[in-house]
Amino acid sequence: MSRYEAPLEDLNFIFEHLLDNERLVALPGFEDLSTELIGAILEEAGRFASGVLAPLNATGDREGVRWSDGEVATPEGFKEAYRQYVESGWNNVAVEKEYGGQGLPYAVSMAIGEIMMAANKSLVMCPGLTLGAIESLCAAASPEQKALYLPNLVSGRWSGTMNLTEPDAGSDVGALRCKAIEQADGSYRLHGQKIFISYGEHDLTENIVHLVLARTPDAPEGVKGISLFLVPKFLVNPDGSLGARNDVRCVSTEHKLGIHGSPTCVLAYGDREGATGYLVGEKNRGLQAMFVMMNMARLIVGLEGVALSERAYQQALDYARERIQGVDALSGEPVAIVRHPDVRRMLLSMKSQIEAMRALSLVIAQAQDLAQRHADPEVRRRNQAFVELLTPVFKAWATENGIRLTQLGVQIHGGMGFVEETGAAQHLRDAVIGVIYEGTTGIQAADLVGRKLARDGGAAFAALLRDMSDVAEELQRHRDLGDIGSGLAGGIASLRQAGEHILPLYRDDAQAALAVSVPFLMLAGTVAGAWQHGRGALAAARLIEARGEPGAFLKGKLVSARFYVAHVLVQALALAETVRCGAAPVAESADFLC
Amino acid sequence: MSRYEAPLEDLNFIFEHLLDNERLVALPGFEDLSTELIGAILEEAGRFASGVLAPLNATGDREGVRWSDGEVATPEGFKEAYRQYVESGWNNVAVEKEYGGQGLPYAVSMAIGEIMMAANKSLVMCPGLTLGAIESLCAAASPEQKALYLPNLVSGRWSGTMNLTEPDAGSDVGALRCKAIEQADGSYRLHGQKIFISYGEHDLTENIVHLVLARTPDAPEGVKGISLFLVPKFLVNPDGSLGARNDVRCVSTEHKLGIHGSPTCVLAYGDREGATGYLVGEKNRGLQAMFVMMNMARLIVGLEGVALSERAYQQALDYARERIQGVDALSGEPVAIVRHPDVRRMLLSMKSQIEAMRALSLVIAQAQDLAQRHADPEVRRRNQAFVELLTPVFKAWATENGIRLTQLGVQIHGGMGFVEETGAAQHLRDAVIGVIYEGTTGIQAADLVGRKLARDGGAAFAALLRDMSDVAEELQRHRDLGDIGSGLAGGIASLRQAGEHILPLYRDDAQAALAVSVPFLMLAGTVAGAWQHGRGALAAARLIEARGEPGAFLKGKLVSARFYVAHVLVQALALAETVRCGAAPVAESADFLC
Repeated sequence: MSRYEAPLEDLNFIFEHLLDNERLVALPGFEDLSTELIGAILEEAGRFASGVLAPLNATGDREGVRWSDGEVATPEGFKEAYRQYVESGWNNVAVEKEYGGQGLPYAVSMAIGEIMMAANKSLVMCPGLTLGAIESLCAAASPEQKALYLPNLVSGRWSGTMNLTEPDAGSDVGALRCKAIEQADGSYRLHGQKIFISYGEHDLTENIVHLVLARTPDAPEGVKGISLFLVPKFLVNPDGSLGARNDVRCVSTEHKLGIHGSPTCVLAYGDREGATGYLVGEKNRGLQAMFVMMNMARLIVGLEGVALSERAYQQALDYARERIQGVDALSGEPVAIVRHPDVRRMLLSMKSQIEAMRALSLVIAQAQDLAQRHADPEVRRRNQAFVELLTPVFKAWATENGIRLTQLGVQIHGGMGFVEETGAAQHLRDAVIGVIYEGTTGIQAADLVGRKLARDGGAAFAALLRDMSDVAEELQRHRDLGDIGSGLAGGIASLRQAGEHILPLYRDDAQAALAVSVPFLMLAGTVAGAWQHGRGALAAARLIEARGEPGAFLKGKLVSARFYVAHVLVQALALAETVRCGAAPVAESADFLC
Repeated sequence: MSRYEAPLEDLNFIFEHLLDNERLVALPGFEDLSTELIGAILEEAGRFASGVLAPLNATGDREGVRWSDGEVATPEGFKEAYRQYVESGWNNVAVEKEYGGQGLPYAVSMAIGEIMMAANKSLVMCPGLTLGAIESLCAAASPEQKALYLPNLVSGRWSGTMNLTEPDAGSDVGALRCKAIEQADGSYRLHGQKIFISYGEHDLTENIVHLVLARTPDAPEGVKGISLFLVPKFLVNPDGSLGARNDVRCVSTEHKLGIHGSPTCVLAYGDREGATGYLVGEKNRGLQAMFVMMNMARLIVGLEGVALSERAYQQALDYARERIQGVDALSGEPVAIVRHPDVRRMLLSMKSQIEAMRALSLVIAQAQDLAQRHADPEVRRRNQAFVELLTPVFKAWATENGIRLTQLGVQIHGGMGFVEETGAAQHLRDAVIGVIYEGTTGIQAADLVGRKLARDGGAAFAALLRDMSDVAEELQRHRDLGDIGSGLAGGIASLRQAGEHILPLYRDDAQAALAVSVPFLMLAGTVAGAWQHGRGALAAARLIEARGEPGAFLKGKLVSARFYVAHVLVQALALAETVRCGAAPVAESADFLC
């Protein structure tokens, strides 16, 4: 079993130096907060994650879930760990106090999310999905629905799910066919099958509140005819007590490459009389309500890439420090493999990309807080645009990185990495789904190029480039950090060129733009990561100057930034070149591939 | 179950246009061979692979091997398939006729190897390892040993293994401690434990001939005190019949991420009286004898990257053509996902890199044939140097690509890719070991930079650059292929610069050179792949001109080459930049990582 320790030093560094904490705690609702309190909360989260969740990660993977006659048993220990999780309130950190949550900033919730998912992604998917359901209900449900369902969802007594996918409607949500027929009492009867429903059935909570996309008989075709329904596993009486079992049934669970500890269910709605459901929000506007859930979920999935990479990194670092193999180049004495340069190259590749992703995740989360709470509408608008632009970038870039980095974790273990008992391979297996669910990398790239970039003519993108350039200039003026500054400036130039190419290209030939949309997205993520490293290097240099000596952590930040520039950011030029000239062969290939 | 069809069109194209077949069939021993006959052999290999091996790939993965009291049962159907495999002679294609083999060129054997491994890598590992044992015995065994063991190994009645690794001696073979004590009759008694022994125990053959590295009591420390021993599972009587069970026992098999159909064994030698073994070749020269086996094995492992990527590609292409999702951009009609540009980008990424790797594998194999058989010693020497230079490059580059490309195969399947029953995830799981066994990517890169490049001062490397440049110049002079030519020329320039940097760097500061050796290796592989695409494009253009119209296959070759230049070769500049400036942070990280 591998240990896990929350990366508190890096998290605190980001909160103290890369986020604008003063501004954050000045927002309405956060008056009681302080940097010290945030640090204390994260420390406590780390303690819980290491002590309660992390030990169940490998055992949950090995045991998996067991389906039997419609019921699903989670692995040994999950039930008790979940109970402690919700009792401690980790499940509703960012939920408004008026709904029973802790009312903490998204930025804090994001940091806690990384910690908990690193410890046990399969388990915390359950409260994670519940959070999504809470968000959707807060945004779209009636006051009566909120009163009836939110308290138990927020307390964690019940859990929530999101039901979009059907066998013939995956990325193309508009193709879904699940039917909802209105009844005399205003409720609906649902009929249809949903697949890939995470925690669609399980034994952690008393009730499960399914949020289900379906069509009414008179609904228009496509995405404009989709409504959102609330379908509880057990019907809920007006006093909040549980009533009859609803006509929704888990038909089977999938045998998956990873996240074995979490059930992925096929749910049959209405095999008998029809599943009772309640319309949430307006008819035919279901996708909008679900999008609230999806945007948030995309950030969380991106965070999985960070979390799994961090867990893999800690395990690989421990192994590299312990495993004796080969001799020291100078002394000829046997050494731990961390002494071999290529092993350190792999470890730095993990560390530097994790730090870039982590910082970006929290910067986006802080922008989300500002977008929701800041008094100035212009500040809210600007931050909202920033979050929307970077959500697909972060989701796809961080999960793609997650696969590469967890695989490096396996590689550092050599042959032991391929043996399942070591546990390194689990992180890779768990990471692969990140680039698929909540919209594949291709879908994120299409969202970035086709919506986020196109709809405002690149205004939010231009603002991002300006913010980045400010940092590059400050670095270039700095006595010791000029190399990082010129690397970043080069990366920004590549990103700008690529953006200036793809924006008009999408207008003139959308297919051509989509053919190079993923390289463009990866370019944006890579440069955004370098931007965060640049900011981190400036802060580290300031602290070193103030303290007179670096210490391991701050030295590590500077080395990490330089490694990122030399080994990762260098790819920016290549990615921009692919955006510039890579679409033609993709178009020509239709002749023989289709 | 996914179908598999041997890529005969591409293989024949390579044999006819990228290899020098006339030269090959003019070599002594190959007089009966012709291009037509090679084509017929590959077709037959394809038929066997599709019909007999491929159907057992997924079932073998699901069932795995079963260890019980020292015995190992292979999955259902493996025994019968193995019997047919050796009856048809697929196990000894390149073994000299004097030893009972087919005496065909390595190039043909390599092509067959790709086909068989794509169909069922786990199964054909057994005859593959036997081949390695045969090679080692041919090179180092006494005439008596050859007479006693080779016939049954070549016929496939017995199998062979290679035993290097021990718990504390993995990449560092010199650290091994297995002991061999000479007996009065000249035989040895072996004591020790070997781990990660593929097919160390199984039920496919009557006997297993273990080739075991061990130390005699008086042996010097390190790699100079290692001897090679032949240790049969059943002792062999002078008449070739089987005698007593030897004191070697399979203690357990590993539970692995992939290649579930193949047993990976812990072998205990000499738990009782000592395992009887026979010295092969000279005492303390065991590593040299084993290296014969290892170099060959490295090319074969590289080929796994090609084979698994091809299998994943075929499955992904089939899925992309069948799966309806989303609508056509123009007509608005539902379309197969292959119509979506990003899906085609992923498919082309697979296709173009597979073709580059396949061509390089066969070019190396042909050079191996020339190195062994050509009448002119200078031709032999030059080709030998080429093979030795490119063996670590091909092994590491092709297996690293294999992981990326099989993961793209999963990605194209969307959510279905994460479900094990689909079979796409198996290819990824099976591919991960390729970058580890027979020397990790880091070990290959150290071999490239520290031995292959350094020992001749870069002479073989310079010759390779000249060969590549000739192709780039021909492309640049060509009416229609100038773009591919300038791409290739740019890649070659990057590779030359990186080589000119790393060669003196290794002399002055070996640790710094090793810190960027993997980027250098990947650069070499990437450019070598572009070289093959350039050669393929020239051949395709000639054929198109001669025929008057391209046809799907030749058009596909040209599009593939252009895609490779725009999406893959573009990384050359970045990799060269990493080689130039990426070592410093790796050196500095020792302070806080160690």
